[in-house]
Amino acid sequence: MPAYATNMRLKFPIVALTLEIITIILFAVFVVYDDGIHHGHGGEDLNATGHELPPMELYPMFQDVHVMIFIGFGFLMTFLKRYGFSSVGVNLLLAAFGLQWGLLMQGFWHMEDGKIKVSIFKIINADFSTATVLISFGAVLGKTSPVQLLIMTVLEITIFSINEHLVANVLGANDVGASMIIHAYGAYFGLAVARVLYRPGLRNGHENDGSVYHSDLFAMIGTVFLWMFWPSFNSAIADPGYTQLTAVVNTYLSLATCVLSAYAISSLVEHRGKLDMVHIQNATLAGGVAVGTCADMDIGPFGAMLIGLVAGIISTLGFKYLSPILASNLGIQDTCGVHNLHGMPGILGGLAGIVAVALGKKKGEATMQAAALASSLGFALAGGAVTGLIMKLPFWGQPPDQNCFDDSIYWEVPEEEEEHEESLTHADHSKNKAEV
Amino acid sequence: MPAYATNMRLKFPIVALTLEIITIILFAVFVVYDDGIHHGHGGEDLNATGHELPPMELYPMFQDVHVMIFIGFGFLMTFLKRYGFSSVGVNLLLAAFGLQWGLLMQGFWHMEDGKIKVSIFKIINADFSTATVLISFGAVLGKTSPVQLLIMTVLEITIFSINEHLVANVLGANDVGASMIIHAYGAYFGLAVARVLYRPGLRNGHENDGSVYHSDLFAMIGTVFLWMFWPSFNSAIADPGYTQLTAVVNTYLSLATCVLSAYAISSLVEHRGKLDMVHIQNATLAGGVAVGTCADMDIGPFGAMLIGLVAGIISTLGFKYLSPILASNLGIQDTCGVHNLHGMPGILGGLAGIVAVALGKKKGEATMQAAALASSLGFALAGGAVTGLIMKLPFWGQPPDQNCFDDSIYWEVPEEEEEHEESLTHADHSKNKAEV
Amino acid sequence: MPAYATNMRLKFPIVALTLEIITIILFAVFVVYDDGIHHGHGGEDLNATGHELPPMELYPMFQDVHVMIFIGFGFLMTFLKRYGFSSVGVNLLLAAFGLQWGLLMQGFWHMEDGKIKVSIFKIINADFSTATVLISFGAVLGKTSPVQLLIMTVLEITIFSINEHLVANVLGANDVGASMIIHAYGAYFGLAVARVLYRPGLRNGHENDGSVYHSDLFAMIGTVFLWMFWPSFNSAIADPGYTQLTAVVNTYLSLATCVLSAYAISSLVEHRGKLDMVHIQNATLAGGVAVGTCADMDIGPFGAMLIGLVAGIISTLGFKYLSPILASNLGIQDTCGVHNLHGMPGILGGLAGIVAVALGKKKGEATMQAAALASSLGFALAGGAVTGLIMKLPFWGQPPDQNCFDDSIYWEVPEEEEEHEESLTHADHSKNKAEV
Repeated sequence: MPAYATNMRLKFPIVALTLEIITIILFAVFVVYDDGIHHGHGGEDLNATGHELPPMELYPMFQDVHVMIFIGFGFLMTFLKRYGFSSVGVNLLLAAFGLQWGLLMQGFWHMEDGKIKVSIFKIINADFSTATVLISFGAVLGKTSPVQLLIMTVLEITIFSINEHLVANVLGANDVGASMIIHAYGAYFGLAVARVLYRPGLRNGHENDGSVYHSDLFAMIGTVFLWMFWPSFNSAIADPGYTQLTAVVNTYLSLATCVLSAYAISSLVEHRGKLDMVHIQNATLAGGVAVGTCADMDIGPFGAMLIGLVAGIISTLGFKYLSPILASNLGIQDTCGVHNLHGMPGILGGLAGIVAVALGKKKGEATMQAAALASSLGFALAGGAVTGLIMKLPFWGQPPDQNCFDDSIYWEVPEEEEEHEESLTHADHSKNKAEV
Repeated sequence: MPAYATNMRLKFPIVALTLEIITIILFAVFVVYDDGIHHGHGGEDLNATGHELPPMELYPMFQDVHVMIFIGFGFLMTFLKRYGFSSVGVNLLLAAFGLQWGLLMQGFWHMEDGKIKVSIFKIINADFSTATVLISFGAVLGKTSPVQLLIMTVLEITIFSINEHLVANVLGANDVGASMIIHAYGAYFGLAVARVLYRPGLRNGHENDGSVYHSDLFAMIGTVFLWMFWPSFNSAIADPGYTQLTAVVNTYLSLATCVLSAYAISSLVEHRGKLDMVHIQNATLAGGVAVGTCADMDIGPFGAMLIGLVAGIISTLGFKYLSPILASNLGIQDTCGVHNLHGMPGILGGLAGIVAVALGKKKGEATMQAAALASSLGFALAGGAVTGLIMKLPFWGQPPDQNCFDDSIYWEVPEEEEEHEESLTHADHSKNKAEV
Repeated sequence: MPAYATNMRLKFPIVALTLEIITIILFAVFVVYDDGIHHGHGGEDLNATGHELPPMELYPMFQDVHVMIFIGFGFLMTFLKRYGFSSVGVNLLLAAFGLQWGLLMQGFWHMEDGKIKVSIFKIINADFSTATVLISFGAVLGKTSPVQLLIMTVLEITIFSINEHLVANVLGANDVGASMIIHAYGAYFGLAVARVLYRPGLRNGHENDGSVYHSDLFAMIGTVFLWMFWPSFNSAIADPGYTQLTAVVNTYLSLATCVLSAYAISSLVEHRGKLDMVHIQNATLAGGVAVGTCADMDIGPFGAMLIGLVAGIISTLGFKYLSPILASNLGIQDTCGVHNLHGMPGILGGLAGIVAVALGKKKGEATMQAAALASSLGFALAGGAVTGLIMKLPFWGQPPDQNCFDDSIYWEVPEEEEEHEESLTHADHSKNKAEV
């Protein structure tokens, strides 16, 4: 198979180390610790008041977001029966690199005396920037090589930082929980990449593109951690005090409501009213996505609940009815259904933000909210398409169709116990990892 | 099997959405954000000082409790070999609805200007109210439908709120870590329900009522998160400062001691001194339950350790010797052994509280502590019995005996890999979840 | 097999309860709650400023460390296919006892009016002291009985407390993240024990000394929680404010960089460039170990990244090339490869600390740093050797070679489902745990 040079032995180490060394050099030149001394006004991150807090004030919030990025996203994707190593392992790789790259890309817009000053606020935002990549990763899960994904990480975060600057600092739009600039952006970026990397050979599915009992339980670890800490995600960079409390309460209630509607619709559309793990793992989170933009606004607790109710419904219906159509008619093979969890609920969140701002006697600002949504979708689709074309170049080690959704192409995978027992007479040939 | 209409297709969505819509309407009428402006004195939640803190002060505590509710209780129950989806999934469903219902039921006792003002303190208490349901869920795990359990959630939290008001505001009893009003209440409520729902057909056990190797490891995720964050559970609503520190230290030490006694007794009573996972998963937590009532009292670090030591012993002995007797002689089939983890240790906690208050020159108050324990047990048994009778009505989709402890009656369950491989020729018939 | 009296029925309960009762008595005599009133100056724990904080200020940091100890270390070791119960279960046992013992042993050096006053600061340090035992546990995992390990816990923590006092209070060396006094100490202590307990019978490996697919995923739960919360480990007892922020930022960046180098080297040295789970589970954490000593120093963000880069490289190379040599040539059978995760990176951290202090115009102090490293290694090797000899006494229930790496020697292990189905006709003989 000359077209698929999936041996990573040289290309992966070279790409990874080159990127890391470039990053370290950029850090040496540009990055210093925050020392609490800030000149000038405004422009200091999304939330100008963040820096008047004690330096460690946001640390517990940061750790909640950290858990969402590394456990939440990582384990959510372990639902595939033979792709758990890649899900949690490549998630760690991309996020670990992405947060460094995000610190630089976001930091370049907010330098002081030519330096990026690292604070808790900045590392929360760096974690946020990686979320876009992890969302897009879900769309192409199982069909891309680690090298392709590192390239996507660099490009997606770079473009994200431009759009974020535009939305927050130029348009002055609100998006505290990032329905638009993270969720909608990450989803449509990933869907654009998936479209460019369309694989006709997987039109009829793939034996490994499904779950087993225990892999669905591993995925629930991701779901539940994401669900629990989403109030931190949506409130971490909100203005301190009662505004931050509002963001917590709205997100908490939207998520709780969304669980009920996701379960109800899952049961309604499935055979004999049974619940479907795909819906439960994903659609229960749509309320967190959809309430993001207006999390810190005075939409009322019941307003947050209505958003969650609708998000759970459209997300579940999307998994059931829309995803198959996107795959068969538009050639968008969205492995994790990010369109249903992040795409549509992200747009819903953007629209809710427009309405909330318009109703809140700030009608001029509603236009800026709409522009922010359009900008996020535009950068996502254009950026994703270009990134997809670059990822499609034939030397990045993309897996052939038959090896998709299979860890063993990029990972040493232990033999199964059953096989092991059959092969006890060849035990000396078996890879015994613990001896290594 | 006309007696068992387990098809959930209409009844589950209707019940779930109806409950949710009623709840949203009640929120629209009664619930607003906390704005920090409070009239009048006292009566403001269990701990009147809670509200003088900055609005986000308790947020990290809240998140610890949140993890206990959703990861802790959810995964603790995944020990059953074929009931993991229900354990963690229905746990999420019940807790997500319960926290909304609890916010209302508890809030109605503490309204200001006709409104319930949502604060972090209030959402911690809302999470607490769901704990009672999740404890009772453990008693009937595997033998009830999601619809039955939603009904139990509504009734159990409503009754809990009455008892809590009585104990905290009328009797003025101490129960900072809720040994009585959550643990004993939840356990005996669940046991009363289990008694009413007694299944003679399961007298000789059930093939699926047991664990496999990996399900026991999933359960340990729940155990360890509960164990670690229990100091937050017992101190979250304690008075700030050194009182809260005392609650943390007592709980930390009681739990640590309890681990040693649970392990020692497990080894002592088992064949060849082997440790039993059921004991390790559960009895190691009894110290957190039993120290709850007097967690914030000056019982001395070694006092807390003695409570933990005794709790670990009686809990382990309960699993080994008492549970089989309850099942065979009293018709109480307690799937998770909540009597041993929450019931007896909860009563122990209540008794320890009476003694601690009596010794602490507050003898008048000891009577109130005893009344609080009696009230909690009384509401639990009576409330559980009535709730059980309602749950026994034949149209809630209760599973037949042979389908107990089996996810596949209410969930789409992926085929096992082994079966899958055998059935590759029928691959087109297999459910491929990722295509949905 | 008279030499292997592995029946724990009496010896384990007696040892565990005796140790616990002695501990409770010592607590009754010596331990009180912190009341915020402190006489005298200095000498109050490693960080004299810790106590001027509000009593609960460090609580979120404590909980992060707690998660690392109980989930992180516990699940990291579940990678073995048949040793998950012991990994997470015995980890819980040892840590629960160790934190009590550590509170006493460390507390004796810092008594006020003859009492040890328990604060959050003190329980963080108690958790730290257990980390040394859990690291050593990794070296002898699968080859020791619970009784042996309890004895190791007592001795290792006692010796740790002496070395810690020497390093922090006599030498006045810096080791905020404990590269030397926890990581290097724990690793070389464990390696010395492993050397004394050398088993020639395992020279050619053991069938159970390896992973299966799902056990590697359970281990990743441990890895990722350790990775995420390591900034808390390295900063928990740092001076509050910007110093603590520096410790967080350095650790965050070192770990992120280390992921890239661990992945790159793993791919470089493995067959066809595949990633090896052993490396990913462990070497990605080496950056947290190696940056420990100088975490709170002004080494610059890029300095932290360089440390992480090197740590990831030497750790991965150690797993691949050095561990087999240690096993075959020196008789050191290091089950989890703690030499690669904690040993070498710990020494690297100590050396980095010497250099950082020397460069920072504090040349006199560099000698003290070097003495601290030497002291930690000396106590580890001597203490580990003596401890190993005591553990080698024939009556502690050490497992015979053929039962190593197998839970079933000390745990009731559920029958596998496949076996269960074959044996349905004997179902009445099978242990049904949930009935107990």
